Amino acid sequence: MTILCVCPNAAVDVTYEVDRLAPGASHRVLAVRSRVGGKGVNVARVARNLGAAVATYGFCGGVTGTELRAGLDDVDAYWTATAAPSRCTVTVVDPSGATVFNEPGGPVTAAEWTALRDTVRTAIPTAAALVLAGSLPTGCPADAYAQLVADTRGSGVPVLVDASGEPLRHALAARPDLVKPNADEAAQLLGRQIVTADDAVAAAVAMCRAGAGAALVSRGGAGCVLVTADGAWSAALPAPLPGNPTGAGDALAAALAVGLAAGDPWPELLGAATAVAAAAVREPIAGRVDPAAVAELRPSVQVTEL
Amino acid sequence: MTILCVCPNAAVDVTYEVDRLAPGASHRVLAVRSRVGGKGVNVARVARNLGAAVATYGFCGGVTGTELRAGLDDVDAYWTATAAPSRCTVTVVDPSGATVFNEPGGPVTAAEWTALRDTVRTAIPTAAALVLAGSLPTGCPADAYAQLVADTRGSGVPVLVDASGEPLRHALAARPDLVKPNADEAAQLLGRQIVTADDAVAAAVAMCRAGAGAALVSRGGAGCVLVTADGAWSAALPAPLPGNPTGAGDALAAALAVGLAAGDPWPELLGAATAVAAAAVREPIAGRVDPAAVAELRPSVQVTEL
Repeated sequence: MTILCVCPNAAVDVTYEVDRLAPGASHRVLAVRSRVGGKGVNVARVARNLGAAVATYGFCGGVTGTELRAGLDDVDAYWTATAAPSRCTVTVVDPSGATVFNEPGGPVTAAEWTALRDTVRTAIPTAAALVLAGSLPTGCPADAYAQLVADTRGSGVPVLVDASGEPLRHALAARPDLVKPNADEAAQLLGRQIVTADDAVAAAVAMCRAGAGAALVSRGGAGCVLVTADGAWSAALPAPLPGNPTGAGDALAAALAVGLAAGDPWPELLGAATAVAAAAVREPIAGRVDPAAVAELRPSVQVTEL
Repeated sequence: MTILCVCPNAAVDVTYEVDRLAPGASHRVLAVRSRVGGKGVNVARVARNLGAAVATYGFCGGVTGTELRAGLDDVDAYWTATAAPSRCTVTVVDPSGATVFNEPGGPVTAAEWTALRDTVRTAIPTAAALVLAGSLPTGCPADAYAQLVADTRGSGVPVLVDASGEPLRHALAARPDLVKPNADEAAQLLGRQIVTADDAVAAAVAMCRAGAGAALVSRGGAGCVLVTADGAWSAALPAPLPGNPTGAGDALAAALAVGLAAGDPWPELLGAATAVAAAAVREPIAGRVDPAAVAELRPSVQVTEL
């Protein structure tokens, strides 16, 4: 059984190294790196790292699409062809940090979306879990994830939605098994501030009321809260880890999907996912965790019933 | 007879529109535009605009190379295949201006450079003029333009070098017919300040002593000076034009190549090229002039013998 990761807005992630980013100036790029990315792709990579069988589903078009096909050699990928070229993201790195430019992706046609939806629907009987991850390209219906959640209903396959904004709002109404926004995404969705752990719990409760079977809200180094029909828990390490937070959210989603696929009890699933997210912080790039680091961190994760 | 434009570092020029460029932030790209560019390509486009037959020669590799081939549909292009992908440039535009990121291009192998050199050499008998334009990709020998100048010797085909830094320094020693750095490029080459018209004349004289048959130094809206074996001239409009200076240098090179190909006398060639560069300032993008604007501006260009 396979964890299916739907990544409608996969991208060629390009990184430019420069001496110093100066708005208005012309920069010589010192080094260029290029890697296939996108939230669903990184979720699939981490889930595979954790020992799961994975497959990704996404759109692919133009010469950038050729790069996507060629570059994603580490996980099985099923691509739906689009007339529009696949998108790039460009991250400019200088000693002071990273500046990111995200192309919107698309436009995708209605027929192209239907083709991707059909491809995913056909694969559901082989799925251990379904992950719907990341932004949607322009042209994709805002309720795309809601449609896929509906397509999965009655199959017994658990669905995790890792999205934000309108796609998440629509998906909630279709009653997915689990959603996992971070505090900023939950705050934006609900139109309220989320500062304390209590704020996060209240946000998770609101998302369950809106349709989620369970809702996790992550607060970076301060850990996560999880609200389910069976109870609510918080989880955190004794202290935040230093490192690279990029990709921690994708790693969290991957671990949650692995736990959902295995039918793990909620507190165990939450503790393991918190350790995986922390292990991802130690990695220089998104989409990778060291299972040894996960094993080392797992005993320090404190899970508390609320 | 054709004007051959050698553009070893042609690029897919990508423009990102954003609300406001903020270093360290994540930006949603509002619009993506993509166009084949590079100095030699833009020189060819303007020369064609001016009625000349043109052909471009350059390297082309990877999926970006596929974009180059597909995107350069407005001029004849002869590509030498490289294993390394062709480069991109990314220009981020916000209301305060443009921020440019230039990938270095390459690496090109010795065999790939030899293949491009052979292709150009074979075409020299068909040439009305040869333009060697822009930067060199990594791996290309620093004396690449010098080699091509030497290959052209004795053919009677005039050679214009539109380059800077080491490629220009090497090319000078091979005695090209004309070089045309702007004041900044000439200052960098010669290691001296160029502020006044007299400084520019002295710089042009120095470049002729270093091997150039003639040397033009452009000073933006302040016009150009030209030093040749037959005399020296300055040219300028009565006042600088407002507009987009990007591409004015490429337009200048195009007009100079057209004049060299026609065997125009130096003062006539200088006056016409100054009008073409001024017309380019009126265009929103590089690589285009309106012949009607050139005709309108030409009478106001004042050419003065020095």
